[in-house]
Amino acid sequence: MPVSDPALPVLDLAATSADLTRQLCDIQSVSGDEATIADAIAAALAGLDHLEVNRDGDAIVARTALGRGKRVVIAGHIDTVPINNNLPVREEDGYLVGRGTVDMKGGVAVALKLAVELTAPPVDLTWIFYDHEEVDSALNGLGRLARSRPDLLAGDFAILGEPTSATVEGGCNGTARADIRLHGVRAHSARAWVGHNAIHDAAPVLAILAAYEPASIEVDGLVYREGLNAVGISGGVAGNVIPDEAIVSVNYRFAPSRSAADAEQHLREVFAGFELEVSDIAEGARPGLDAPLAQDFLAAVGGTASPKYGWTDVARFSALGIPAVNYGPGDPMKAHADDERVAIAEILECERGLRAWLTAG
Amino acid sequence: MPVSDPALPVLDLAATSADLTRQLCDIQSVSGDEATIADAIAAALAGLDHLEVNRDGDAIVARTALGRGKRVVIAGHIDTVPINNNLPVREEDGYLVGRGTVDMKGGVAVALKLAVELTAPPVDLTWIFYDHEEVDSALNGLGRLARSRPDLLAGDFAILGEPTSATVEGGCNGTARADIRLHGVRAHSARAWVGHNAIHDAAPVLAILAAYEPASIEVDGLVYREGLNAVGISGGVAGNVIPDEAIVSVNYRFAPSRSAADAEQHLREVFAGFELEVSDIAEGARPGLDAPLAQDFLAAVGGTASPKYGWTDVARFSALGIPAVNYGPGDPMKAHADDERVAIAEILECERGLRAWLTAG
Repeated sequence: MPVSDPALPVLDLAATSADLTRQLCDIQSVSGDEATIADAIAAALAGLDHLEVNRDGDAIVARTALGRGKRVVIAGHIDTVPINNNLPVREEDGYLVGRGTVDMKGGVAVALKLAVELTAPPVDLTWIFYDHEEVDSALNGLGRLARSRPDLLAGDFAILGEPTSATVEGGCNGTARADIRLHGVRAHSARAWVGHNAIHDAAPVLAILAAYEPASIEVDGLVYREGLNAVGISGGVAGNVIPDEAIVSVNYRFAPSRSAADAEQHLREVFAGFELEVSDIAEGARPGLDAPLAQDFLAAVGGTASPKYGWTDVARFSALGIPAVNYGPGDPMKAHADDERVAIAEILECERGLRAWLTAG
Repeated sequence: MPVSDPALPVLDLAATSADLTRQLCDIQSVSGDEATIADAIAAALAGLDHLEVNRDGDAIVARTALGRGKRVVIAGHIDTVPINNNLPVREEDGYLVGRGTVDMKGGVAVALKLAVELTAPPVDLTWIFYDHEEVDSALNGLGRLARSRPDLLAGDFAILGEPTSATVEGGCNGTARADIRLHGVRAHSARAWVGHNAIHDAAPVLAILAAYEPASIEVDGLVYREGLNAVGISGGVAGNVIPDEAIVSVNYRFAPSRSAADAEQHLREVFAGFELEVSDIAEGARPGLDAPLAQDFLAAVGGTASPKYGWTDVARFSALGIPAVNYGPGDPMKAHADDERVAIAEILECERGLRAWLTAG
């Protein structure tokens, strides 16, 4: 009989999903320090007949193998941004207040409770609890699994429990960053005419951005609003020098119907004639809400779906050919906020919605 | 009889002004460390019947008191920017190479030699050797004298020995710096429409700068070319944030016929409707080359005068009502350069020109 580690926090799975949220938040798990919470989750899932449990670093993957015709993946990250005197969790006016309550241990608690309780779902289920979402994308635990164990991510539809105020947000826009670089000739500003001012040359670039009218593009029944914005500008050597360089950094949010190549081509057309370098590009995710499985999900949780504008890890599923949506408790505007807080009612609503869908005929 | 300090470098005033330049350069005097060179200059000027010598900090002022009807002030700074393996001075192909040769110990050597030798000039002379020109304007030795001993700066015409390649450059443009600040509303760049992009709002500011046609303004017979340029631009919070602030920093070089108030008014007209704050403003200096004394000087040194574009300490004389010109050996483009070098012929030419004027009639 294994000797249990007395230092390991033990999760009480019989508690409500709201109480489980509190338990999970009070196990600090800032990115890079997820071992303890991963141990606790692994312990909670161990020894259940209906689940095969795999661990990869601090990511836990628990799968049913019931031979159903379809498989649904439900995933959430277990790390948080740094705490800031906002733990342990306290309850206030129907809210749980503290780091991780919104982003996203409410969603994790719902998933963990259902993973344990749903022993005979109508579809096979894959529950993923992963690490390193809040830091450099290269460290992302879901990305690591997609590279090393894509078999564990296989499925027909995926739900990411990121906060959506308990509504369904489908897919996500893609995002590209690019630098537009202007070149001049440095000179003393007392004799400006012997130089060439690179900052002045940025005038038409900013004029293009100010006049740009972003498209709204329908994908699988949801309308994605695009955006093209300067997110940075820099130039200047000293107060008495004509600057020889200026850089405008732009961020293009593009509909999930566009490929990365399409998005880059669009940027090159918009800024034709300027030196443009794409520094970072990530495709979005199609919502896939026209599939019967997704329609059933939507009907069970109620309400109508809306598009997700921010890039989330649903795009990692989309890249594997798996349509994916976001569905979780909490107002995303409160993610990372020092007064992060989730409505207890939203946690319970998400649990109800998923349970209704996953226990239906 | 005073005991001489064996550590004090002794200047050989019988040497040529070129050799004296070398001697002065080899006494290192980076701004803030001028005591040794000031001691050496004070020692060289001490005990001469035709000069009254005053010292203020490391500034030395030596004046004749011959009761002439006019007084001319000849000034130069004795500090340099930091050395960079470019001392001691070496001679190469007719040049003296090393820190300070251009900026401006060539001019100081000419002045020091003539201060000692011109015992009966046709005008009274004030020779000023001052400290802290290459650093924060608040430390400037000439500025300190202007505040604490304006009587020592009194005169009808002033010559600053800053490098002009041995030509006369009259007066100088004024200079103003201002920040134009744009305000937006911060938002996540995935939902740009809930924010307002401050960088985009800089588009018309840059368009104004790019289209601006600087004036050329005649003052006392010299034509001053103005300039208005961005010297810096900044904005941006993060790669996924709509920026709520952008700042364009501009530098306006304005003709010496404009007051500081005129210059600021012009900036406010050019950027009407934008939030503009003047951070720094210094008026220029009229050349005063239409005065008879200046005409005599020009005739003696030969050639024609041109306007000085960069701001120099001549403006400190102008602020006291004393017209002033720049006249010294060395190409100003070599000032502060690691390969700083002055043509020996230019040093001798400046000595010849000043001597011809100050021994005439």
